[in-house]
Amino acid sequence: MLPGAGAGPHSLFVTRDWVHPAVKASWDSAQADSRGTTLPAKSKECLIGMAVGWFYLSVLALCSLGSMCILSTIYWIWYWQGGFAWDGTMLMFNWHPVLMVTGMVVFYSAASLVYRLPQSWVGPKLPWKFGHAAMHLLAFILTVLGLHAVFDFHSHRKIPNLYSLHSWLGITTVFLFACQWFLGFAVFLLPWASVQLRSLLKPFHVFFGASVLSLAIASVISGINEKLFSSLKNGTNSYSSLPSEAVFANCSGMLVVVFGLLVLYILLASSWKRPELGMQAERQALLHGGE
Amino acid sequence: MLPGAGAGPHSLFVTRDWVHPAVKASWDSAQADSRGTTLPAKSKECLIGMAVGWFYLSVLALCSLGSMCILSTIYWIWYWQGGFAWDGTMLMFNWHPVLMVTGMVVFYSAASLVYRLPQSWVGPKLPWKFGHAAMHLLAFILTVLGLHAVFDFHSHRKIPNLYSLHSWLGITTVFLFACQWFLGFAVFLLPWASVQLRSLLKPFHVFFGASVLSLAIASVISGINEKLFSSLKNGTNSYSSLPSEAVFANCSGMLVVVFGLLVLYILLASSWKRPELGMQAERQALLHGGE
Repeated sequence: MLPGAGAGPHSLFVTRDWVHPAVKASWDSAQADSRGTTLPAKSKECLIGMAVGWFYLSVLALCSLGSMCILSTIYWIWYWQGGFAWDGTMLMFNWHPVLMVTGMVVFYSAASLVYRLPQSWVGPKLPWKFGHAAMHLLAFILTVLGLHAVFDFHSHRKIPNLYSLHSWLGITTVFLFACQWFLGFAVFLLPWASVQLRSLLKPFHVFFGASVLSLAIASVISGINEKLFSSLKNGTNSYSSLPSEAVFANCSGMLVVVFGLLVLYILLASSWKRPELGMQAERQALLHGGE
Repeated sequence: MLPGAGAGPHSLFVTRDWVHPAVKASWDSAQADSRGTTLPAKSKECLIGMAVGWFYLSVLALCSLGSMCILSTIYWIWYWQGGFAWDGTMLMFNWHPVLMVTGMVVFYSAASLVYRLPQSWVGPKLPWKFGHAAMHLLAFILTVLGLHAVFDFHSHRKIPNLYSLHSWLGITTVFLFACQWFLGFAVFLLPWASVQLRSLLKPFHVFFGASVLSLAIASVISGINEKLFSSLKNGTNSYSSLPSEAVFANCSGMLVVVFGLLVLYILLASSWKRPELGMQAERQALLHGGE
C-alpha cells in the first residue's frame, strides 16, 4: 500500500484546495447514497485506489511524452541538421534546441512535479525540498549549457546575440528561472524564513513556477519556427512546401505543447497535491539539526 | 460602497479556495492580535477596502497594458508595414496580427475576467454568464476575421496555408477556443445540465480557458518573430542589426507576454473570484423563466 493510502481519502484530499473533479464526483455520489454518514472503508480504499491509479497513468503518460520530446528533438537535429559537436560551428548550435527542451521543459517539469508524488504526501517535507531544488539546479545547468552553445556559435560566426523576439523571451525566461530558484532556495530551503513569510510567498512561487514553464514553451515554439524558417529556404525544399523535416519538427513542437499542458494541469489543477501539514515541525527539526 | 462589501471579508473571501496572500497575511496578523476573537468591523472594512483597491489598481494596469498591446501592434503595422486594406494584398495580411492580438489576447482576456469584477460577486450569475459568453463570441469573431485576412492573402499570392509551426499552434488554439466556447455555452448557459455536471466540468473549463490564452500568447510571439524574420532581410536593415522596427515589435511582443501573465495571475491565483453561491437558485430561475 502507498504511504498515506490507509489514512482514507479525506486526510489526503479534502484538506487540499482543489480536489480532482472525478474523485470529488465519486465522493459526492457515494456520500449522497449514504445520506450523510461516513463512507464505508471499502469505498474509501476503492476511491483512493482510483486516484492513485489515475496518478500513475498520468506519470506514465508524462514520462513517455517527455522522453518523446527529447528524443524527437535529438532525431530532428541528428537526421536533418548534421548532428552535434562542441566546436563553435553550426554543429555546436545544434545542442541549443536539445539542451533547452531537455533542461527548460522536461527536467524543469519533472522537478516541479516532485510534490505530486504520493510518496511525498506524508512524512518530512525537507528531503523532497532538497530533491525539488537539486532537480531544478540540474535543469538550470542544462539550460546554461544550451545558452552557451548558441552564444559560442554566434561569437565564432560574428552573429549578434539577443536580437530576435525568441531570444528576448528566452533570456527573460532563464532570468526568471534563476530568480525563482534563488528566491525558492533562500525562503523555502534555508531555515531563517518564518512560516508566515513562506505561506505568503508560496502562491507566488507556484504561480511563477508555472509561468516560467509556459514562457519556456513559448520560447521553444518560436525557436523551432525560427530555425525552420532560416534553414528551409531553398525553392524545392522550402518550409512552405512542408518537407519531411518541417513536418517532423512541427510535430516535435506540438508534442512539447501537449507535454507542457499536461504538466501545468497536474501542477495547478489536479488533486495530487501535498497536504499543508507539518511545516512548523519540519522547520523545528531543521533548526535543531533534525532530518 | 461596492455590492457585497458590507458583508465583511469572510463572506467574500474565506469561502473561496485561494485567498489573496496579502489579504490573508493581514487577516492572520489581525486575528493573531485579537487572539481568536472576530475582527472589529472597522478592520474588516479596511481589509475589504484594501482588496477592492488592489483589484481596481490591477484593472487599471490591465486596461492600460491591453490598450498598449493593441495600439503598439497597430502602430508597428501602420508605421513600418504600410498600413491596412481588405484587398488580398500584403496590406490585407496586416490585419492578421492586429486582429489576433485584439481578439485572441486582449478581448479574450477581458471576457475571461468578467467573474472577477466585484459587481459580479453578488446577485444572480446568469447576466454575467451572458456577458462572459457574448464577450468571448466577440473575441472569436475578431479571431476568425484575423484568420480570414491571412488565408485570403495567401490565396491571392498562391502561398500555401498552415505550414509553419506558428500556424499549426495558432489554428489549434482557435480550434480549442471554439470547442471551449461551444462546450461552455452548452453546459453552463443552457439550462439542461445538472449542478453536478457543471461542478465536474468547471475546473476543466477554467483550466482550458487559461490554456487557450497561454497558447494564444505563444502563437503571437512566434508570429511576430516569423513576420520580422521574413520582412527584415536586407543587409543594412536585417533583423540581426536590430533596426527600430525590430526593437519596437519585440517590445510589443514582450508587452503581450506581461499582459498575459497578469491576466493569468488574476484568473488562476488571485482572491478575486465569485463565491460559489446560488448556482441551484439561478438554474431554477432560468427553468421557470426568471432573470
